[in-house]
Amino acid sequence: MAGGHVRTQERTQVAIVGAGPAGLMLSHLLHLHGVTSVVLEVRDREYVEHRVRAGVLEQGTVDLLRDSGIGARLLREGQPHEAINLQFAGERHRIAMTELTGRRITVYGQQEVVKDLIAQRLADDGQIVFEAADVAVDGVDSDDPVVRYRVEGAQHELRADFVVGCDGSHGVSKDAVPDGVLTTYERTYPFAWLGILAQAAPAVHELIYARHDRGFALYSLRSPQVSRLYLQVAPDEDLAQWPDDRVWAELHTRLELDGDPVRVTEGPVLEKGITPMRSLVVEPMQHRRLFLAGDAVHIVPPTGAKGMNLAMADANLLGQAFDSWYGRGERELLDGYSRTALRRVWRAQHFSWWMTSMLHTFGGADPYEEQLALSQLRYATTSTAYATSLAENYVGLVDV
Amino acid sequence: MAGGHVRTQERTQVAIVGAGPAGLMLSHLLHLHGVTSVVLEVRDREYVEHRVRAGVLEQGTVDLLRDSGIGARLLREGQPHEAINLQFAGERHRIAMTELTGRRITVYGQQEVVKDLIAQRLADDGQIVFEAADVAVDGVDSDDPVVRYRVEGAQHELRADFVVGCDGSHGVSKDAVPDGVLTTYERTYPFAWLGILAQAAPAVHELIYARHDRGFALYSLRSPQVSRLYLQVAPDEDLAQWPDDRVWAELHTRLELDGDPVRVTEGPVLEKGITPMRSLVVEPMQHRRLFLAGDAVHIVPPTGAKGMNLAMADANLLGQAFDSWYGRGERELLDGYSRTALRRVWRAQHFSWWMTSMLHTFGGADPYEEQLALSQLRYATTSTAYATSLAENYVGLVDV
Repeated sequence: MAGGHVRTQERTQVAIVGAGPAGLMLSHLLHLHGVTSVVLEVRDREYVEHRVRAGVLEQGTVDLLRDSGIGARLLREGQPHEAINLQFAGERHRIAMTELTGRRITVYGQQEVVKDLIAQRLADDGQIVFEAADVAVDGVDSDDPVVRYRVEGAQHELRADFVVGCDGSHGVSKDAVPDGVLTTYERTYPFAWLGILAQAAPAVHELIYARHDRGFALYSLRSPQVSRLYLQVAPDEDLAQWPDDRVWAELHTRLELDGDPVRVTEGPVLEKGITPMRSLVVEPMQHRRLFLAGDAVHIVPPTGAKGMNLAMADANLLGQAFDSWYGRGERELLDGYSRTALRRVWRAQHFSWWMTSMLHTFGGADPYEEQLALSQLRYATTSTAYATSLAENYVGLVDV
Repeated sequence: MAGGHVRTQERTQVAIVGAGPAGLMLSHLLHLHGVTSVVLEVRDREYVEHRVRAGVLEQGTVDLLRDSGIGARLLREGQPHEAINLQFAGERHRIAMTELTGRRITVYGQQEVVKDLIAQRLADDGQIVFEAADVAVDGVDSDDPVVRYRVEGAQHELRADFVVGCDGSHGVSKDAVPDGVLTTYERTYPFAWLGILAQAAPAVHELIYARHDRGFALYSLRSPQVSRLYLQVAPDEDLAQWPDDRVWAELHTRLELDGDPVRVTEGPVLEKGITPMRSLVVEPMQHRRLFLAGDAVHIVPPTGAKGMNLAMADANLLGQAFDSWYGRGERELLDGYSRTALRRVWRAQHFSWWMTSMLHTFGGADPYEEQLALSQLRYATTSTAYATSLAENYVGLVDV
């Protein structure tokens, strides 16, 4: 900001914008490789540590956290799951993911990963600047990029070899890319999710993805005491129209089958919100000295549980690429980052779209589409090959 | 027709409308079970024996023909294929169907199947009425259905226990069902296929399904001397705008890769036509004493090569159901025909839609969709599970 009177100059090797999973993980990996970084975050620590988001970690994400020394609490408190359930046409079918793929997912809230990463960065004297206001990235076309920001009124200039934008879908980093360089691919869906976090022991141990005539519902959990449940609602749904009683009634209707021992357990609602659904990819994920990762360049509907896992995969690629550059002077991985990352990004885009279109109702606008969805669900629950394909995407593909 | 002066009364157990693969196969199977039938066909024999249609037989279709004694020439002249090729982004990938599923497809023209079935029916003194005009089905709600038709001006009334409509998408049989009973599910596609049959030794032994920026192309064959090739074109394409030279030029462009040994072999064009693309299902496939089979109640785009195979599967189900009824007085299979058949029908609907949407370009209207298609093709050529899923649908699922 030109108007700032106090101007502090700083320098680091990699300036990271955003203290979400991607930015924090990258900062941690760089530290392990002896590369310096500064993480700038517009929110305060309290906020990012309590922002409830995804909760399903792929095997590869768990391995990355464990192998980089961040996994102690995750391995202790995270809940490994070996299957999910697909429910439709009045029946519930178990997809035995681990049996089909040899891998599993782990339920552990994104905010817990964020807490663990922040704790580790601070223990390692890592620099995270919270409440960094008016962040602006500049000069990514030159050899001397800079990130300007303000803290408590004081103007700062952070110079770096590279800038990595991990600042989410509303982030400013990608604004630093000249017009015409980026292409955006996007799809919207005619529905949203109403999600609640409830103090209620989940009635099931494995997630239930339910397609019901009244819309999709998901029975998931965060711990043996906390349930996480979702309902498909209209994209412009008014949360005020959904008192807790109505939410529970709808969850009972959509999730419980006739003669089913599963009864949705009620409890105090700790949090309630609407999650919009869209698919978005911005390409390429790099421009000169700027790299982009996570939600800043790709959004998936939550049905495939891929958002945080993609962010971690991006961070992992960038960690390796910077290590290769700073450690051995090799540019190949940095130059190839976008191309490599996009293979996984588009795999997850397809999987998330697949799960979304198969499990949601589209308001009867296209009866053929509804039958197509049902035929896919039947197929996923009768063909080992198709079930394996679904499962290997869900637990996370090793090579894409 | 009330106006007919000469009126001949006939009686059979099962009246079959349509001498395509479904109707002829059913008539043959009924004969093997000792059930009488008459097949009514609006066209002449020459026409139905030379109508060029599908050419890919699932393993199950081949087994059905062989086991019912129709397979001698098919087994001699049909060409077994153990793989297909998927081509996109400048690369060709082999999907080893037999390796993945243990089954194979056989290339043998639909009109050859029709010839073999007609020859066998006539050898068995089966009754096929060609050039049956003004066919009208009536009384399917009663215990005494009737099919009226005219041959060389003479009016006929065929009374039967049951009527089976195998008379294709423009058939009249389903008009006998009262309003409000049938539901139609439909999807259209913004493209068609321009197909040629050419006297040219195919340059490849296994089919090539190619997604190209200019549109889909398919390199297939009917024999070691005859190629069958297709190009995606506009749905309202004018065939007059496609002289042979233009067709060959476009085939070279879409099917040949840089440095590729495969060069499309040219030869005299024996036939050229436009095939519209749509998906359609009419449910239920039965009403009282009327049963509907094949194209009369379900159409698939040809990309999945499922049309004739579905018709044969319907005929097989009906053959078993009538055998069960006439042989043992059991109605379960007849009553369950539509429900059972529709499982396979919708499986094929999904597969055909999947192949179609993955391999065609949609005119750039939805760039996200194009990337989704490419990500599926990449996945089908890198994941054993997904490739197996594609292959098992292509060769034909045993249980659906």
